[in-house]
Amino acid sequence: MVKKAGVLGATGSVGQRFILLLSEHPDFELSVLGASSRSCGKKYKDAVTWKQTSLLPDAAGEIVVHECEYEKFKDCDIVFSGLDADFAGPIEKQFVENGLVVVSNAKNYRRETDVPLIVPIVNVEHLAVIDEKIKLSEKNGIKKPGFIVCISNCSTAGLVAPLKPLIDSFGPLDLITTTTLQAISGAGFSPGVPGIDILDNIVPYISGEEEKIEWETKKILGNFQGQEFKPDFNIKVSAQCNRVAVSDGHTECISFKFANRPAPSLEQVKQCLKNYVCDAYKLGCHSAPKQTIHVLEQNDRPQPRLDRERDNGYGVSVGRIREDPILDFKMVVLSHNTVIGAAGAGILIGEILIKKNLI
Amino acid sequence: MVKKAGVLGATGSVGQRFILLLSEHPDFELSVLGASSRSCGKKYKDAVTWKQTSLLPDAAGEIVVHECEYEKFKDCDIVFSGLDADFAGPIEKQFVENGLVVVSNAKNYRRETDVPLIVPIVNVEHLAVIDEKIKLSEKNGIKKPGFIVCISNCSTAGLVAPLKPLIDSFGPLDLITTTTLQAISGAGFSPGVPGIDILDNIVPYISGEEEKIEWETKKILGNFQGQEFKPDFNIKVSAQCNRVAVSDGHTECISFKFANRPAPSLEQVKQCLKNYVCDAYKLGCHSAPKQTIHVLEQNDRPQPRLDRERDNGYGVSVGRIREDPILDFKMVVLSHNTVIGAAGAGILIGEILIKKNLI
Amino acid sequence: MVKKAGVLGATGSVGQRFILLLSEHPDFELSVLGASSRSCGKKYKDAVTWKQTSLLPDAAGEIVVHECEYEKFKDCDIVFSGLDADFAGPIEKQFVENGLVVVSNAKNYRRETDVPLIVPIVNVEHLAVIDEKIKLSEKNGIKKPGFIVCISNCSTAGLVAPLKPLIDSFGPLDLITTTTLQAISGAGFSPGVPGIDILDNIVPYISGEEEKIEWETKKILGNFQGQEFKPDFNIKVSAQCNRVAVSDGHTECISFKFANRPAPSLEQVKQCLKNYVCDAYKLGCHSAPKQTIHVLEQNDRPQPRLDRERDNGYGVSVGRIREDPILDFKMVVLSHNTVIGAAGAGILIGEILIKKNLI
Amino acid sequence: MVKKAGVLGATGSVGQRFILLLSEHPDFELSVLGASSRSCGKKYKDAVTWKQTSLLPDAAGEIVVHECEYEKFKDCDIVFSGLDADFAGPIEKQFVENGLVVVSNAKNYRRETDVPLIVPIVNVEHLAVIDEKIKLSEKNGIKKPGFIVCISNCSTAGLVAPLKPLIDSFGPLDLITTTTLQAISGAGFSPGVPGIDILDNIVPYISGEEEKIEWETKKILGNFQGQEFKPDFNIKVSAQCNRVAVSDGHTECISFKFANRPAPSLEQVKQCLKNYVCDAYKLGCHSAPKQTIHVLEQNDRPQPRLDRERDNGYGVSVGRIREDPILDFKMVVLSHNTVIGAAGAGILIGEILIKKNLI
Repeated sequence: MVKKAGVLGATGSVGQRFILLLSEHPDFELSVLGASSRSCGKKYKDAVTWKQTSLLPDAAGEIVVHECEYEKFKDCDIVFSGLDADFAGPIEKQFVENGLVVVSNAKNYRRETDVPLIVPIVNVEHLAVIDEKIKLSEKNGIKKPGFIVCISNCSTAGLVAPLKPLIDSFGPLDLITTTTLQAISGAGFSPGVPGIDILDNIVPYISGEEEKIEWETKKILGNFQGQEFKPDFNIKVSAQCNRVAVSDGHTECISFKFANRPAPSLEQVKQCLKNYVCDAYKLGCHSAPKQTIHVLEQNDRPQPRLDRERDNGYGVSVGRIREDPILDFKMVVLSHNTVIGAAGAGILIGEILIKKNLI
Repeated sequence: MVKKAGVLGATGSVGQRFILLLSEHPDFELSVLGASSRSCGKKYKDAVTWKQTSLLPDAAGEIVVHECEYEKFKDCDIVFSGLDADFAGPIEKQFVENGLVVVSNAKNYRRETDVPLIVPIVNVEHLAVIDEKIKLSEKNGIKKPGFIVCISNCSTAGLVAPLKPLIDSFGPLDLITTTTLQAISGAGFSPGVPGIDILDNIVPYISGEEEKIEWETKKILGNFQGQEFKPDFNIKVSAQCNRVAVSDGHTECISFKFANRPAPSLEQVKQCLKNYVCDAYKLGCHSAPKQTIHVLEQNDRPQPRLDRERDNGYGVSVGRIREDPILDFKMVVLSHNTVIGAAGAGILIGEILIKKNLI
Repeated sequence: MVKKAGVLGATGSVGQRFILLLSEHPDFELSVLGASSRSCGKKYKDAVTWKQTSLLPDAAGEIVVHECEYEKFKDCDIVFSGLDADFAGPIEKQFVENGLVVVSNAKNYRRETDVPLIVPIVNVEHLAVIDEKIKLSEKNGIKKPGFIVCISNCSTAGLVAPLKPLIDSFGPLDLITTTTLQAISGAGFSPGVPGIDILDNIVPYISGEEEKIEWETKKILGNFQGQEFKPDFNIKVSAQCNRVAVSDGHTECISFKFANRPAPSLEQVKQCLKNYVCDAYKLGCHSAPKQTIHVLEQNDRPQPRLDRERDNGYGVSVGRIREDPILDFKMVVLSHNTVIGAAGAGILIGEILIKKNLI
Repeated sequence: MVKKAGVLGATGSVGQRFILLLSEHPDFELSVLGASSRSCGKKYKDAVTWKQTSLLPDAAGEIVVHECEYEKFKDCDIVFSGLDADFAGPIEKQFVENGLVVVSNAKNYRRETDVPLIVPIVNVEHLAVIDEKIKLSEKNGIKKPGFIVCISNCSTAGLVAPLKPLIDSFGPLDLITTTTLQAISGAGFSPGVPGIDILDNIVPYISGEEEKIEWETKKILGNFQGQEFKPDFNIKVSAQCNRVAVSDGHTECISFKFANRPAPSLEQVKQCLKNYVCDAYKLGCHSAPKQTIHVLEQNDRPQPRLDRERDNGYGVSVGRIREDPILDFKMVVLSHNTVIGAAGAGILIGEILIKKNLI
């Protein structure tokens, strides 16, 4: 049965992507849009400055925009939030407390010990915490309790995607470094990255980004017990983040070291990545990538312009896998920041929640 | 006294820069130009596709281009070589064997145990090997023997510039990592980096570059004995190289670990870099940077478009110096690849050779 | 019935696009590939440096590449030529003389008086000349004579697309100006436009391009008599061409004046463009755009990154239609240079040839 | 004697350029800075986000910023205004009414019939109106009356620069078209042009720009009588404006037709441009270009990255001069938008005012 979906922050860059993906989705019906009071009462097509390469879907354009109040969304089976962190906190909280299911791109609740932080091609098993929460609630007589699932930071998603299958096969990592070359679409529209900052230039800093990568990686690659997540604080993660003149697609030059000796061979690492099939695909999710990790053998790949659209942006490309003189291996990872790193991940999480009967 | 200077590979991108820098130089007089047979016999202005932001100097334009034969250059006190590695080997060898002094940007002789590989703001002391060679030759009755000095790889220059003063103050490093974001001017003109490869894109590979950084760093930061260089093979260096949409200026995200414990404090590291005065400046060289290392405190700097021209491109900018969760420190380094990383370095080496009476 | 298709110049940029479009095409079966002797005998996947954003189709990759000799293509119902102008002349001639049908992207035969120069959303009626030729040949006992159809220059295609319906409705134009801002993909791969020429830069010149626009426009907007084309030399066309930092999509700022007074109103012009349905769509061609001309009302559109993919690149976007102080009207036109301006146009011409029973 | 200079809008992009140019200027002493109340009371270095490629001059950094009130500027011989049009109107008016001389980059007073609109390499003679005004005031007993001189729109400056000498030599023009490819620096910093709008893209619209070009050209190329300017409304001007991925330097593809027949020959046009020496240079102004118009003969020039810095950005480059099939001639013009098109023009106007004893 098709699920009713709402979108918070509908006019922003993440909101626009949610709307685009939901408009033609077999599992969801786009039904309620929320934005700031400036847009409230207008048809979506009149409220938004649409900046997508696909046209604004006609039906979505006709929806009248509401303020972000939970009463308006009470018929939604799921609410996708593209709210800015400045506003997301209290709004999302109120939605959950009123029994709504929120999949959020905001950073506000990512570090909560009982909130799953999900990269849907990586740690679907963390949703067991929601299962537990629902069972407990039902024991206490609450039917269909609200809950929130957080989408990870975009560059974190690209980093953990190839590391997770390696950990599953060869045991824990203890050292991870990443230097990112991040696309400007990740910064949104208003104002986003100024043109003068990115033309013939690099900005070697993205506010809060390195901290997000260094912390979120430990939670996503960590475990949980009952309803509580246990980030793996044994892993040391070091991130250096740069903004570059790329529209979509984050490139990361990473290196890593396994905790166990001997480390796997180069060939074992490649084979493991090639063989990896993510749970979302096994569950039969509509958007899940057929090939989760694309291992590229040409020495000058992956490249964002050529490789970011693999599996509609849900597949991650990895190239130049080679031994590292300092840690065990180094390689280049490319992930589509607005798909697997933001709105697209949210939609796939929604699909997983359906398959797991959590909504 | 003004020295007569020749340029090999005069029509290429490095050659054009040599000619520009020599044309207004107080110490040198541009006198002989060598290029391929296709250009031979033409006036330089008719042979070259000039692609510099400064106009071709009138006098240089009138010089008739020769083939790269040593007889034509025999009156030169110094010859700057911008030859491609495909041609540099035998030509430079013949020049040196015939008593000429060559400062070369080509990679061919960088690894020779008796050839100094010089970053002129870093390891001027390595030129002592030339001193030794001259003395030995004179002992054997050879007056003014030929010799070659190699300019380092461009991204290596940016990497070692801030590391050298740290080693001088706090002892050897044992681990160095660098992820580079390199400008396209480093790839020359014909064809250089295709536009379609760099627009909205990154190429995560530069042929041979990582090997150069990993090896040259050990030689430049190493020692010498008599006439033999002893690269410091105790340092482990790991490089990941990317080509990005920047015209000039290589950005490097580096991290490093000192061999000795305790490591210096963050404040000591910053102070050491700020205080560093390179030997070339102490010698009074015309092009030497007044401030060798610019330590920037704004968190989003250095940026290539804004910071690459410090001290006419001879100064290196360092920002975001901070502790690293894995090695001791990480930071961002920006160096001007065609100045301190190529032709400009060659000219400054020439100035140093004069000050040290080696030419 | 599916037609067998060959591709000449298979490893070049236009050839790669032909192969991509043919690989999943319902009307064509990709059967023979021709390239230079360097590639000959290799599997296509080993001969090509694939630079498309879509992966190389598996089946195409396995095809063994031949030299461009007509014997190898004799079973082809149609041959798409992406050959460089340097080679296209004699090869295409030989193919046609040996009874093959060639759709060529090269400029060599565009000006022949009996060769149709086709923009498939504009002047399908010009193919009547082929009809005539076939009838004549059959009268002379030649069954299935070979013939060539030329694809127009890319920026010419974008220019004539919106002008043709206006001429059909309001009579001939006598003055047309266009200033183009052309994408770099139009220049191919080897070497194409150097990165250093296009980063933070414009090149205000494209060899031969202005002449092509000024001449081809007159032929495409002109008439024919029997087998002879009569370009409309009453139209004066003035073109100024620039290469800019855009990957795909040519933008043109055009102005034009009708021969007849009074000229139509602004509203009539807009309505005419909105109502235009190209013949290829009426014929039911697979790739024909549903909406030939997209008239955009937002004042800052069309933009290449946002609008180039309309109708898979077969639709042309027009914006900022307004009165001109000098000629009658001015407006901005965006067309996808590798689709409606090159390989895509060739494929659509092939579809039209099928619908018209010309192959 | 050095003149005391103030700067209004000191923290904005135009203000920063004024400060940079004034800091090392032989004729001016930077003495008062005005900005919004947010910056008021702070040292300039603490108030500004400095985004120039040259370092913030030390002395300027120490100046304490005032609000834009005329009392604070009363000792200034000249005030350069980089205020936004939203604020410039009443502030500049008040300054002038209180006897100050204002050179303004804002558009607010450009169309006033008694305000000179000056491109300092083009129409210095228009300053005679100020002379007249001063004489009249003095007759009325007012010593040193305030007045305002407006800097033209940036793309207008590039357009009129080569047209003025042609008109002087060959009589009036009656038709002028320009299609501009404008740099992003013209849009300032906050927010300026968003990166996502300019990467792999063109924006074919700049608010108000076409109207400015079409109107200002007529005033600058027009005459004056007593204190009243008479724009030349006989000229028809048509402009189409685009924003492109260039940091500095506006490129314009222009065409034009002389009123008189026969029109001059191509050779006469070129020679006229080459011979032109602007009045500012004849007056001996410090910043005036030695060569006002650089006529380039290579067919692919001018290019912004290579040619924008001619004569420190005060020289205009013209290339591809050729006959036009519709008007008389067409050509490509490149002018540095932040130099001759904005702050730089203001400074040169200031120098001219000194030479003419108007301050």
